[in-house]
Amino acid sequence: MGMDRGKYVLGIDLGGTKIAAGLVDSGGEVSNYCLVPTGAADGVEAVINRIVLAAKQAMAGYGEKIDAVGVGFPGLADPRTGMTTAPPNLPGWGEVPLGAMLQTALALPVFVDNDANAAALGENLFGAGRGCQEVVYITVSTGIGGGIITSGRLMHGFGGGAGEVGHMILDPGGPACRCGGRGCWEALSSGTAIAREAQRRIQNGEHSRVTVLAGDGPIRAEHVFQAQAEGDALAMEVIDRAIQYLGLGVANLVNVLNPQRVIIGGGVARAGDPVFVPLRERVRQMAFGRAREVEILPAGLAHLSGVVGAATLAFAAGSNSQCL
Amino acid sequence: MGMDRGKYVLGIDLGGTKIAAGLVDSGGEVSNYCLVPTGAADGVEAVINRIVLAAKQAMAGYGEKIDAVGVGFPGLADPRTGMTTAPPNLPGWGEVPLGAMLQTALALPVFVDNDANAAALGENLFGAGRGCQEVVYITVSTGIGGGIITSGRLMHGFGGGAGEVGHMILDPGGPACRCGGRGCWEALSSGTAIAREAQRRIQNGEHSRVTVLAGDGPIRAEHVFQAQAEGDALAMEVIDRAIQYLGLGVANLVNVLNPQRVIIGGGVARAGDPVFVPLRERVRQMAFGRAREVEILPAGLAHLSGVVGAATLAFAAGSNSQCL
Repeated sequence: MGMDRGKYVLGIDLGGTKIAAGLVDSGGEVSNYCLVPTGAADGVEAVINRIVLAAKQAMAGYGEKIDAVGVGFPGLADPRTGMTTAPPNLPGWGEVPLGAMLQTALALPVFVDNDANAAALGENLFGAGRGCQEVVYITVSTGIGGGIITSGRLMHGFGGGAGEVGHMILDPGGPACRCGGRGCWEALSSGTAIAREAQRRIQNGEHSRVTVLAGDGPIRAEHVFQAQAEGDALAMEVIDRAIQYLGLGVANLVNVLNPQRVIIGGGVARAGDPVFVPLRERVRQMAFGRAREVEILPAGLAHLSGVVGAATLAFAAGSNSQCL
Repeated sequence: MGMDRGKYVLGIDLGGTKIAAGLVDSGGEVSNYCLVPTGAADGVEAVINRIVLAAKQAMAGYGEKIDAVGVGFPGLADPRTGMTTAPPNLPGWGEVPLGAMLQTALALPVFVDNDANAAALGENLFGAGRGCQEVVYITVSTGIGGGIITSGRLMHGFGGGAGEVGHMILDPGGPACRCGGRGCWEALSSGTAIAREAQRRIQNGEHSRVTVLAGDGPIRAEHVFQAQAEGDALAMEVIDRAIQYLGLGVANLVNVLNPQRVIIGGGVARAGDPVFVPLRERVRQMAFGRAREVEILPAGLAHLSGVVGAATLAFAAGSNSQCL
């Protein structure tokens, strides 16, 4: 973009429940951060109106200082066309030309990509991957997604699907995945998988603090992590199993891609050392040759990764158009 | 290299038992092809002398028409420095500055890379991956190796290890791998794995045509493929199992990398339809979303892939130094 100092990109992080927007400067600092509910059930048009609302709120008073808009989309997005395709958490969303629609509404160039790709780029430019040319970013929360940086650029693959690491199969006889397959990484190591495995064992008659912590509501991964911290045996086993598979998936990616750093974001990563210490150990055991020298770090941008990552799509598009 | 018509690159394919060399023109055609034994047991210096011998044999009479030398190395090689590292099938080979040594001996620029990376590039420029920007090449013979082309270029990763797909773990409780791990792809789907599984079952008292075909010698994968073609039940089960895991590994790569084409080379791929028909079916079942639109093809360069691939390292180095 040839960003001048004092100029901004508007970053928009579209999620299943919330839309976050904010202005990001060329140093990765965020201002005018705002959140609006997605209201996904109201349909595509309503969601797009709320994106525009959030955008205008974040842009208020900065109009002429904003160069471009970057959008992180929670599903498959074609960065060349801005076309987006039915994501799992936006019901009724078909093939939507999100880039073109926002370009019209906001009168600025718009860059759209998958949200995990955006976060990978954000971490690469401003977070835990700064200065690295070879980075794999993995987000572990309700699902598992990812983004691959190679030679300092996002890898998209043929149809924009590169980095969809959550459906790597690690146990062909394993639990069913929402994709229709069995034993996908996401079905073994995500927050959803942790909650489901605890629930399965409790329903089978085992006792656990998790039952008390969840109370009348559904069991969530946070309950299992809390019970683990309190020394609950079932919770410790469930989380240990999820981390073993987390390590197996990371080791496979490291063997195939040989990154300098693997960065882990998402809710599960926020558990910190209880996840990262056994994870690093597991990857060292299973990685091959020099690949095991990889560094495994938590994401550095915390709750701002979505908005910063989205904005970096515009920064990177600028630099990619030149010969570096 | 800015290759003129009529100009050549010398391609050298260093293997554990044979060294192949030949002149490759800018259309990928090979002339002056020659083979010499590696004699790996004689040590590093003897092997390098034989490489130089093969090179001079292939160059005879063409001296001034040769622009550069490309070398495919059967192990980890750093393409920036030409440094090579202890491969499994060259005993006694430590850290050897192969690029620099050949540059001195041949007085030409020398480009060195891993042999599967070289073959990937060769297939991309002149074989089954022609015209594609996103290609995964996999060689399945005694081991499993690979190379990844993204945005039309070889992916090296941080330490030159990208594409080392054979040690992706597909069954953590599976058979031991020569790398020290368990359930690596190579331990489940390579020719060695096929022969070993047939042998294990025969030693456990099962009957098979494989015993007759192997005679007094060791069981090899070719015997198992031949027995399968003759309808032998054990051979059919062993090969079916190897192909199921072959499909699982390809599906995982396709999910992570989203290539347009996967190209399979090496001995196992030469079995043709009996491998490719069930393989494609398996990948379609296990790949996610648009990734399953991938085309899965046998390598197009046959026995010349090593030499052509090695030569393309020099062609690609030329084009990479410009801004395309």
